[in-house]
Amino acid sequence: MDFAFDARTEELRSRLLAFMDEHVYPAEEVAEEQRAGLASPWDTPRVVEDLKAEARRQGLWNLFLPDAEYGAGLTNLQYAPLAEITGRSPHLAPTALNCAAPDTGNMEVLSQFGSDAHRKQWLEPLLAGEIRSAFAMTEPDVASSDATNIETRITRDGADYVVNGRKWYISGAMNPDCAVFIVMGKTDPDGQDIRRQQSMILVPRDTPGLEVRRAMRVYGYEDHSHGGHAEVVFTDVRVPAANLIGEEGGGFAIAQARLGPGRIHHCMRLIGMAERAIELMCRRAVARTAFGKPLAQQGVVQNWIADARVTVEQLRLLVLKTA
Amino acid sequence: MDFAFDARTEELRSRLLAFMDEHVYPAEEVAEEQRAGLASPWDTPRVVEDLKAEARRQGLWNLFLPDAEYGAGLTNLQYAPLAEITGRSPHLAPTALNCAAPDTGNMEVLSQFGSDAHRKQWLEPLLAGEIRSAFAMTEPDVASSDATNIETRITRDGADYVVNGRKWYISGAMNPDCAVFIVMGKTDPDGQDIRRQQSMILVPRDTPGLEVRRAMRVYGYEDHSHGGHAEVVFTDVRVPAANLIGEEGGGFAIAQARLGPGRIHHCMRLIGMAERAIELMCRRAVARTAFGKPLAQQGVVQNWIADARVTVEQLRLLVLKTA
Amino acid sequence: MDFAFDARTEELRSRLLAFMDEHVYPAEEVAEEQRAGLASPWDTPRVVEDLKAEARRQGLWNLFLPDAEYGAGLTNLQYAPLAEITGRSPHLAPTALNCAAPDTGNMEVLSQFGSDAHRKQWLEPLLAGEIRSAFAMTEPDVASSDATNIETRITRDGADYVVNGRKWYISGAMNPDCAVFIVMGKTDPDGQDIRRQQSMILVPRDTPGLEVRRAMRVYGYEDHSHGGHAEVVFTDVRVPAANLIGEEGGGFAIAQARLGPGRIHHCMRLIGMAERAIELMCRRAVARTAFGKPLAQQGVVQNWIADARVTVEQLRLLVLKTA
Amino acid sequence: MDFAFDARTEELRSRLLAFMDEHVYPAEEVAEEQRAGLASPWDTPRVVEDLKAEARRQGLWNLFLPDAEYGAGLTNLQYAPLAEITGRSPHLAPTALNCAAPDTGNMEVLSQFGSDAHRKQWLEPLLAGEIRSAFAMTEPDVASSDATNIETRITRDGADYVVNGRKWYISGAMNPDCAVFIVMGKTDPDGQDIRRQQSMILVPRDTPGLEVRRAMRVYGYEDHSHGGHAEVVFTDVRVPAANLIGEEGGGFAIAQARLGPGRIHHCMRLIGMAERAIELMCRRAVARTAFGKPLAQQGVVQNWIADARVTVEQLRLLVLKTA
Repeated sequence: MDFAFDARTEELRSRLLAFMDEHVYPAEEVAEEQRAGLASPWDTPRVVEDLKAEARRQGLWNLFLPDAEYGAGLTNLQYAPLAEITGRSPHLAPTALNCAAPDTGNMEVLSQFGSDAHRKQWLEPLLAGEIRSAFAMTEPDVASSDATNIETRITRDGADYVVNGRKWYISGAMNPDCAVFIVMGKTDPDGQDIRRQQSMILVPRDTPGLEVRRAMRVYGYEDHSHGGHAEVVFTDVRVPAANLIGEEGGGFAIAQARLGPGRIHHCMRLIGMAERAIELMCRRAVARTAFGKPLAQQGVVQNWIADARVTVEQLRLLVLKTA
Repeated sequence: MDFAFDARTEELRSRLLAFMDEHVYPAEEVAEEQRAGLASPWDTPRVVEDLKAEARRQGLWNLFLPDAEYGAGLTNLQYAPLAEITGRSPHLAPTALNCAAPDTGNMEVLSQFGSDAHRKQWLEPLLAGEIRSAFAMTEPDVASSDATNIETRITRDGADYVVNGRKWYISGAMNPDCAVFIVMGKTDPDGQDIRRQQSMILVPRDTPGLEVRRAMRVYGYEDHSHGGHAEVVFTDVRVPAANLIGEEGGGFAIAQARLGPGRIHHCMRLIGMAERAIELMCRRAVARTAFGKPLAQQGVVQNWIADARVTVEQLRLLVLKTA
Repeated sequence: MDFAFDARTEELRSRLLAFMDEHVYPAEEVAEEQRAGLASPWDTPRVVEDLKAEARRQGLWNLFLPDAEYGAGLTNLQYAPLAEITGRSPHLAPTALNCAAPDTGNMEVLSQFGSDAHRKQWLEPLLAGEIRSAFAMTEPDVASSDATNIETRITRDGADYVVNGRKWYISGAMNPDCAVFIVMGKTDPDGQDIRRQQSMILVPRDTPGLEVRRAMRVYGYEDHSHGGHAEVVFTDVRVPAANLIGEEGGGFAIAQARLGPGRIHHCMRLIGMAERAIELMCRRAVARTAFGKPLAQQGVVQNWIADARVTVEQLRLLVLKTA
Repeated sequence: MDFAFDARTEELRSRLLAFMDEHVYPAEEVAEEQRAGLASPWDTPRVVEDLKAEARRQGLWNLFLPDAEYGAGLTNLQYAPLAEITGRSPHLAPTALNCAAPDTGNMEVLSQFGSDAHRKQWLEPLLAGEIRSAFAMTEPDVASSDATNIETRITRDGADYVVNGRKWYISGAMNPDCAVFIVMGKTDPDGQDIRRQQSMILVPRDTPGLEVRRAMRVYGYEDHSHGGHAEVVFTDVRVPAANLIGEEGGGFAIAQARLGPGRIHHCMRLIGMAERAIELMCRRAVARTAFGKPLAQQGVVQNWIADARVTVEQLRLLVLKTA
């Protein structure tokens, strides 16, 4: 058992840590200022494009993609500690490296299950960071934690499919750069096998009948930097049959394949956030005095910090072992 | 030991529960719609004024105030179960009954420690629900949980006091109806007794030098219906010496007196919110199906509900005993 | 809502607190010394009989029994705070007052459901503190938390019932003074209504075929002062049909009736133990120095004490409200 | 990062797992039966000696000792997963492999800090599993978690040291095979440096003035198979000056060195116990039915098992990383 990272991971970690210090952390205040001057809160501050250009120049780009042809070709275990580092600046770093959800999962789907035409039209601009995308699975009317419940209909009609349904908490959909949705729905709602009723289909944002109805909040936040979480309604949305990803009935399996790595990425970014929060807590504990002495010298605060340290350490190891 | 409420409390509970059913709950959607059409998010939806008029008509008004001359003359233990009920609709009910923080604490201060002039000028319109107020204690630069740390200066200059300092998380200050601040600062910053350095003073909102700088967020929320939480800067703010509440050096004691009942009110409203949340959880558990059966028939969900029930029951009893 | 105890409760609390101070606490060390010299660890130290005599003389006797003819006639809510006080000295006080489990529940069963003969033969000596008893419900072979599972058989045979089965964790059965068992088993194992298959029957300890096989441990303890927890085997144990309590099929209902008040008693005694533990913790915190200052001046220890205080306070209120 | 064990560890794990299956688990019931027939509960069941002989024969002996001359020469990280396995049968396996506390820590002290004479007289028979030992640090009169508090005196008197003091919770001291104590006390109680006042000294069990006064309990258990936890009094106990381990004033540093690896060993054994408990819980959940279906099909029980699984997984990784 060896708790050190391998050479390639260590090399990328060093470069990414330097990128964070030199480019990302200094951009945090800049982004906040630019954000205050945006025409719409859903627009992206200019500094994000600068960071993307710099990351791409440094080869810190598409690190998430295990496919070596399209991406960095790292294993999940190699990418995980890099995802952690990006989580330290969650509003900037994942996007800067073109490693932000939900595009990452969508790019994985397209690289693994998409046709050549899908890859040409959507994967390439996504890999280039030119467009964004969304993944439309969760629905208000059914318990979508159990994805077999999905009720959106994808109905064959001649050379097209017609999509009807209502989705919500569709992350990224408020971003005007979001150009395409991967939509999950049922092509065979009465099929015997409840895990073969679903399919996935590509729906360009400008398709008639697709309405991004409103931004939603998660614990009070609209999450502008993540493209928000939208309610999206599909009313007789017609797309060519060739937009189907993989085969009819393959949607549930693709969804499971898509969500696995994404869970590791989210966990590791959260660990990065937690590490930064602990740093801030420690700095505060040293700087702040209450009831006669610095917080850092008060046993209860020391206890909190120790608990936080142990908890994060445990979670990181568990996630890495799962990766 | 008798866990029943006394007759006056029961009578008020019945009337308040009826008022909630007939007026407050139906107003919730109305308020949300009106809010969407407000010129400023800090304005108050019209329906709130209707509710205030109705509550006043029904004698469900100023129930919080133990002073029988100015208010309902209830004990804390009598008022606590009423506060719980208002917490079931936290954006509407406390304001409707003129029982909303921070006005309640400020009215207590004025009724107990204010001069006749203070009462005439500020307490009467507050009791009538014509103006709102704020309480400015917490400061960004010092650990204000330890109120002896407060650094704002209240300096005597001839017939005036001059206030200089920076406050934040000043609840209610974003509300345009907020007409007056009770400000805590030091009149004797070098005094021997660190609990006698502080005083409290009334500062009308339109006093030159008082700047309500920005709205702040608490866990992502701006809390429009509560008048927000503002950063407020006092720069050479000059008010007549008669604006001082009580005597020089009495500020710390007044603050302690003010916060005690308010803590009970907040706790009880939170218990009311928790009760309503449990109701919603139970309704959802019956209505929602996942993984083959309604949530209400799943052991883990039953366990959550039981834990919530027991926790709220315990907390209510503890708060009532403390009241 | 009134958190004060009523007059009768307060009067009994005063007398019981005085009895604890004057007789019970001083007897704790005496009992421990006498225990070391006992022929069998299951014998009762002499001082316990002295305490029983004194309690009876003072009228602090059978306080648990709501039946005013046989006992004190207190409600559960009146007895609960007295049970709490006895829990402060759990090895002595409940027995001293003839308020110890499992006799209390058994006396309730006999006073409510027993025949005149049952009361004469068993209830009277139990009320007099002359004998002890046990309640045999739990079985190793079935999940006895669901009492419908009980598999012991009580079979009618002429003028007798014959009992066959294996029970464990039968508290009090190791005490040589334990003269009688109330045994729960099935008289109608194939009956339609699974809550009517069970009956309860009185089995004198010296009945042939009844074997108290061994003492068991609970969290490592044999609990000598409570008469232990025994495995008991019934092999063709024959008793007169008149030994049945109530009617055939009434056992499940009697068990539920029996367990309700007992749960309150146990909870309150545990709260009394917790209170005494907090007292000991506070005394220790003041007396003990580690890492440069008394434990009582260390924030983490203060936090523990505060948590303990709040938890016990909440639990007491919850139990009293349930009583 | 590589979560696999190295080749030597894997090879030893395989052999140890086979040894557990073939010899240790089958011996558990045998040991319990033999224990029932022992003259004293502190004697060791015969089967333990058989297991020791077999383990030694198989080279599964002294695995804990990083010193390659005296022991297996494993690193802590290599030994840790083996300690985990022994923890699955805590009453037999650690002793069978001569890897039981407190001997392990004592052997480490003697191999690192002992003189040639110490090694000859005590280390060799300990390594051979012929004798047992104890470590006497904790005292009732001072908070011994802060080892600078220790008050036992080790006073030079001519060619001897004289030891006076009272120790408790001295694990292993009840075992009649325990032949020697490593005692920590102060040689320089008034020394400036509070971490240089302490020394360690070897005291043979039969030295006059050494009294093993009584067995103590930990959470109700006497822990016979671990040699108990004794109160030990030293009254003018005289030993040759050469019995001092290392130099005067070196005791505190030795204690710290000794306790580090031992903490890892204890943690890993506890993880092994937890794993076995989870296995038993799962077996029980499948076999036991309550309220209409097997426990294993009840959501709350599934939740408990999942929580246990995740907790143990996290703790193992954390301990291994610390090792």
